[in-house]
This record gives sequence, structure tokens and C-alpha cells, in this order.
Amino acid sequence: MVAYPDLDSYLEDNLDQSIYELSRLVAQPSVGAQNLGMLECAELTAELMRKRGFETRLMPTGGAPVVFSERKGSKNKTLLFYCHYDVQPAEPFDLLETPPFEPSLRDGKLFGRGVSDDKGHITSRLFAIDALLDQFGELPCNIKFIIEGEEETGSIHLPDFVRKNKELLAADACIWEFGGVDHEETPLQYLGLRGICYVELSVTTAQIDVHSGLGGSIFPNSAWRLVWALNTLKDQNERILIPGHYDNIVPPTERDRQLMQLLPETSTEYKNRYGIKYFINGLTDGVDLRIAEVFQPTCTICGLTSGYQGPGSKTVLPAKASAKVNFRLIPNQTPEQILKQLRTHLDNEGFQDVEINFLGGGPAARTDPDDPFIKMVLDTARQVYGVEMKIIPLSGGSGPNYPFVHDLGLPVATAGMGYPDTRGHAPNENIRIDLYLKHARHMAYLIKAFAY
Amino acid sequence: MVAYPDLDSYLEDNLDQSIYELSRLVAQPSVGAQNLGMLECAELTAELMRKRGFETRLMPTGGAPVVFSERKGSKNKTLLFYCHYDVQPAEPFDLLETPPFEPSLRDGKLFGRGVSDDKGHITSRLFAIDALLDQFGELPCNIKFIIEGEEETGSIHLPDFVRKNKELLAADACIWEFGGVDHEETPLQYLGLRGICYVELSVTTAQIDVHSGLGGSIFPNSAWRLVWALNTLKDQNERILIPGHYDNIVPPTERDRQLMQLLPETSTEYKNRYGIKYFINGLTDGVDLRIAEVFQPTCTICGLTSGYQGPGSKTVLPAKASAKVNFRLIPNQTPEQILKQLRTHLDNEGFQDVEINFLGGGPAARTDPDDPFIKMVLDTARQVYGVEMKIIPLSGGSGPNYPFVHDLGLPVATAGMGYPDTRGHAPNENIRIDLYLKHARHMAYLIKAFAY
Repeated sequence: MVAYPDLDSYLEDNLDQSIYELSRLVAQPSVGAQNLGMLECAELTAELMRKRGFETRLMPTGGAPVVFSERKGSKNKTLLFYCHYDVQPAEPFDLLETPPFEPSLRDGKLFGRGVSDDKGHITSRLFAIDALLDQFGELPCNIKFIIEGEEETGSIHLPDFVRKNKELLAADACIWEFGGVDHEETPLQYLGLRGICYVELSVTTAQIDVHSGLGGSIFPNSAWRLVWALNTLKDQNERILIPGHYDNIVPPTERDRQLMQLLPETSTEYKNRYGIKYFINGLTDGVDLRIAEVFQPTCTICGLTSGYQGPGSKTVLPAKASAKVNFRLIPNQTPEQILKQLRTHLDNEGFQDVEINFLGGGPAARTDPDDPFIKMVLDTARQVYGVEMKIIPLSGGSGPNYPFVHDLGLPVATAGMGYPDTRGHAPNENIRIDLYLKHARHMAYLIKAFAY
Repeated sequence: MVAYPDLDSYLEDNLDQSIYELSRLVAQPSVGAQNLGMLECAELTAELMRKRGFETRLMPTGGAPVVFSERKGSKNKTLLFYCHYDVQPAEPFDLLETPPFEPSLRDGKLFGRGVSDDKGHITSRLFAIDALLDQFGELPCNIKFIIEGEEETGSIHLPDFVRKNKELLAADACIWEFGGVDHEETPLQYLGLRGICYVELSVTTAQIDVHSGLGGSIFPNSAWRLVWALNTLKDQNERILIPGHYDNIVPPTERDRQLMQLLPETSTEYKNRYGIKYFINGLTDGVDLRIAEVFQPTCTICGLTSGYQGPGSKTVLPAKASAKVNFRLIPNQTPEQILKQLRTHLDNEGFQDVEINFLGGGPAARTDPDDPFIKMVLDTARQVYGVEMKIIPLSGGSGPNYPFVHDLGLPVATAGMGYPDTRGHAPNENIRIDLYLKHARHMAYLIKAFAY
């Protein structure tokens, strides 16, 4: 079923041009964690907006600037798009098939760091707008873009920015930065995001690394201190041991369970794709696995570093050791609570020497599955994908949706071009071109439907 | 008191030339752990030997070759020097004051990777030989050098090499690769070395790193598995928890305690030099600290690596995690015993997924403090340093002295140019030129005394 043949033919005819525009954006590195190319990428993003007649400015946040854009349309209703121009670090380089910032097209896919997360969403939405402007000469409704530069580093400044710019950002609904299809090609609707609290834990026990033959028996060892401290955070049954961590959390509702029940089986897919041999906690498959995946808080070690890490052996007692740890939060946990409880716990366990460096976070937030805007996103998706979107009441991932839901009061829907092998946050990130086109169609249809 | 004025004046007059020769040797990288420049350094070492009329050959070991050299002398007694031409890795580069392989002379010190450990000992001993040849036209006794290339990576092939070449290596006594003065400028005589067993423990839980929002709640995490496994190896009271680890170990004798009692206080020195705030196990100072330093087995984490380690945050579940761990062994522990008990222990604790990669090791060995050769080394040291050597019955460090003591049956004495700030195995390794000269004098005196 083709709903808007003119929009469709525009998008098919101009796809190459949009992929080229995306390639330009991906070729501009913007690794927030490494402060690499951030301003350059913000300016390039703004240039793409201005080309479409959007009033655009770079707004200071205290960190990387926000690119804010708006253009009026015929109807006085406003749709807000949230995107981000920053990307994850490209490491580990040795696992990359092609250089991360030299977009490479092969097998119907475009490879490059940030191609899916999130630059493809910026250009595909602009592509949808191009189609609408081509057909109607104007936008059917007001459109705003808020494109931040700190999503991959915890959106540290965004909540304050949103709260301070409520009038500027005022809208009727919001489309989030990501979305996509599952391994059965069914588009997914994520109605909420877990919160996150990302910390670096570090221990310093000496000024310099010491020969392990000297210090091994009598000096404190930073790596051992770190291992022992980490070990107090979570037991081998994956139970987080920080007192109070599970207090006040909101368990899934009956409606949540129903929605989770409708989702497809993922266990085999996960095992094959990631090469994992088992799930933790004795989980095997089914709705229990899916509920565990998102409705429980986590404490994940994302990185460990200490001492000698090269080939072979080096006999040192490391002066410093550190771990990157992220906590995924479910409603009603807050990063403030996590940080406070973590400090108290480490102190009580005798680890006053373990420093906590907060690297960003925010609480979880969700949109009502029965909101009319969600229905509209589902209806237009059905026109494009030919199947019904599957509703996921809460995503395992995180993002700064809290201020959009709770401060701006918006229903927030997800839509995007992701697919299971898109490798966001991993080597060889890629998008499928066919899904890029579908997302642009979906967004063009949605904007049109939203205006009337 | 000047014992041999002609030897002394030769050494003083030709010091610059020997330092230049050392600089050439240091400028040739030879990082065994990274297989960097090994053969080139072996050949350069052989060239230095041949220049002095030593019959020299590179002998295969299965790994880096051994440089073996010998030259006959007037008396039919043989002194064997054990040295090594390989060096520790130069990392961490960001802490280096000058490039590791560009020797830099400042403040009466020569800086560079390997300058003390062990290249300075090779050239200073050749310098002593130059002085003897200059004075006598021939060597007063037979001299052999065995200079290996795998000392810093656990001397994996050396014990077999020694056992297979007992006739070639036959001697009456052996001078070890290192030695030096303590913080009171007193030269030290190490009569033994702890053994070592160096392993890499690694866990792989997936084929690729996974977005932590996906895998965090349901996938096994390699970094957590590693932390939990490590935590079972040693408790916070530094007690090694591997069953059988403390079986059969030989405690210090009454003579050992007497010798340790005579050693100077080191606690303040250690705290100031390394910036450590306390000693483990409630130790504070005195003979108890010194005995703990060397007479107990250790389990030291030398390095940790997993996942994202760059600046800022990256939300990944790491596919792989690994730790470099070394055990220091006291008599009668063996690496074979440690490896076997470690595997059994990890299996019993549920860590069959933790792989053990043995990176090298050997048992501890000691020489009798009352051996006549030790007395000779002490007597000649007194002539050079003006004070009595302090006898340390066992060193905290390790080395392949076991086959020299037990297969060749040699008394093994230590002598060298080290001092407390020499930074072996750490950034900015250096030697003091005055101690370099003293060591050369000591070796010239010793060879002369040894021959008569």
C-alpha cells in the first residue's frame, strides 16, 4: 500500500543525494568523550539545517553546544525532533573493517562511526522534510530540532538546558533520536528509556609503578584494591549489593507484561549475533528474559585499566587502577541516589580510597502506550513497513528523555533506521540503506498526518 | 684505601668511553615482551664481546638467542657472569622525561630503558676486563659470559639451556646480573632470589562488545567474571586463598633473621620514594617489615585490561577481560605447583571460563652466606666502597638463578650499580655514573682476587 506516491517518488529519486549528505556528516568526527571535532560537527549540522530554511543557532550549554533549529509551517502545531551529533569513540581500531570516519558503502549498507547513532537520523529526517517541501512548498506544521552534542557522554548539560528553554522548545509531541526494526523486520516503538548513572572508580596507591618484587609483599596494590571494591558492588548472582539500591523501584505493570508478552523471541538471535553461550541468572528465553532485559537495574563494568597491558609480562605493582561502571536505572531510581548510596557503601566497606568520578546520567522516563500521538506514529509506520509496530514499554538503553517527558510534558515516540546488526557503540557500526529510506518515508508520512 | 692504583687510573681515564658504549647498547631497543629489536641487540652485544677477544656465539634457545662468550686467562679457574640484553617495556610513555631509547646524561646520571637493568652491567664488566687487559695483557683467569634475552619475560628457555650446556657453562663461581647500594650507600649482597610464576588470566564472554543497555541485564560480562575470579585468589588481608599455596614453604632460618636484623630501616625511605601511605597487613617498620618483604609468597596484579579505557564514558559490555598476575615464590614453591593449584581452584570456584596463559617462571634459589666466594666478593667490595656489604639472604625479586645454583652447582653472588632511585621496571630508569665506575672497579678487583 502506497499512501503518498509523490512523497515516495521524491524520496526514491533523491536517496543517493541524502546518503551523500550523511557521508559528509559522518566524515566529520565528533567524539564527545575525546573532545574530537565537536564544534566543527555542530557547525556542519547547522549548515544542513539552514540549507532547508530553518532558523538555526548554536546555543551554549556549558559543554558541547546544542544546535537548535525551527521552521514554521501552515498548521500551528509543533513537532519536536531530538537528535545528537556526537558519536561514541571509534576504538577498538583493530576490529574495524574500514576507517571509522571514512564512510564506506558495501552490501547495501553504509559503514562508519555514528552512521546510525545518530547522524543517519539527522539526515533522514531532513530528507523527509525535503520531500514535504518539494511537494507542498512549505511545511505542513511547525518543526523544531534540538540536536545536542553530549548524548554519548551522558547528556550532562541537557536537562538544565531544556528546563531553561521551555518556551523555545514548546511543542505538542516529540520524536526521539532512535528506533528501528527487530530481527523479524518488525519496527519497534520504545515508549521509555532506562536512566543511567555512569561513574569512573579509581584508586591510587603510589606515586609511581613499583617493581613487583619489591612492593608485592608489603605495599598496597591499586589493582587489588579496585578488584576488592568492585567485588562488593555485585555478587556472582548479579545481585547489586549496595544497600538501598532496589528501594522504591517501580516493577512492571500488568500492561507492561502484556506488551512484553507480544514481543518476539530474542534468545537465539542474541546468542548467534553476539556469540554468547548463556544468559545470566539461569534465564533461557521467553517473556522472563525480555522483562529481565529492561525492567531491572544493572551495574555493568564497561572498562578496566591498570598497570601493564601490553603483550607478554611486566612485573609491576600498578600505582593506579580504574574502572568505568554504569548503572542502568529503572523508574524511580535517580543518579543522585545511586551516587550517594555508592559512596556510603564504599566507605562502609573500607574503600574510602576509591574515588568516584561522575561521568553523567539521568533518571528513567516513559510515555503512556495509549497516548494518541503514539497511535499516530503506529498508524503511519504501518503504511510504510506493512506491519504493526511492536510496543516496548521500556528500552534497555538510556537517554535524556526525562526532561522532555516531565518538564516539557511531551509524549515521546521512537522511530529510526536501526536493525539488530547495526553495531551501535561497537566496531563496524552500519545502517541498511533500505531502512534509511523507510525511516525517511515514515517521518514524511508522520509529519503530514500530525498536521491534520 | 686504593688497592690497585693502575686499575683505578685506567678506569677513571676511560670512563667516558665506557659510558658511550653503554649508550650505544641502550639506544638499541630490546623489549622482549614486544619482540622489539631482540636479534639486533644480541648481535650488538656479541660485537662488544668480540672486540675484547672473547670467543662469542649466538646460541638458539627456542626464543631469543643466548650470547655466550669466553676467554681463557692465566689461571685455570673460571668466573661466570650472568647478564641479559633484554629490557622491560618502556611504557607508560607519558611519564617519561626523555625518550627511553635515547640515552640522556644529566645530573651525573644516565637515563634510558635498560641502562641499569641490565645493559649497564654488561658494559661495566667489560670495562673492568679492559682495565685488566690493559694492565696485564691477558686475563688473570678464565671468564665466561652468559647473556640471555628473556630475563624480563620470565627466562622461559634458560633453565633448559643451562641444563643442556652444563659443560660449556662449567665454572667455579658466578656473578649475577644485578646489585647495588641502598639509601645509605651501603652495597648489598643478595644471596638468593624468590621464584616467580607469571600468568595472564583472561575471560571471553562474547564475540564483540555489546551496548551495555542491551546486554547489561542478561548477558555475562567478561569484566565482572574476571573481577569475581580474581577476588577468589586473595582476600583483603592479603591471604592467598588458593588451597595448598602455603604448603611446604620453607620459613626463614635463625641465621636469616639475624642477617635481616642487621639491615637498615627502610620504611620511611619506601614511603617517601614511592609515595605510599601505609604498608599492608598492619606492618609499620623494622625487621618484621623486611622479613615480610621477601619471605612470603605474593600474588600481585600487574595489569588489568577490559572494554573502554579512554577518557569519558562509553557504554559497552566488554567481550573480553584479562589480568596479568604474578606470584613470587619462596623455597620450595614451584611454578608447576602454582599453575596446577590455580587451575583446580578456579575450576572449583566455578571459573572454568577463566583461561590461564603461563608467561614464565622458575623456583627460588639461594647461596650459603658462609661460602668462601661470598667472602671474596665482600672483601673486594669493602676495598672499593669503604664499607662492609650488607647481606640480604633472599631478594624480593626473581631471576633464573635456580639452574646456576642447583644444576651447575655454583655459588652465586650479586654485585651491581643499582641504587634506590634507579627505577628499574618503571619510567625514567637511570644509573649514577659514580656507581657505574665503582662497580667496574669492584669487578676488576674481584677478578684479580678470584684468580689468586
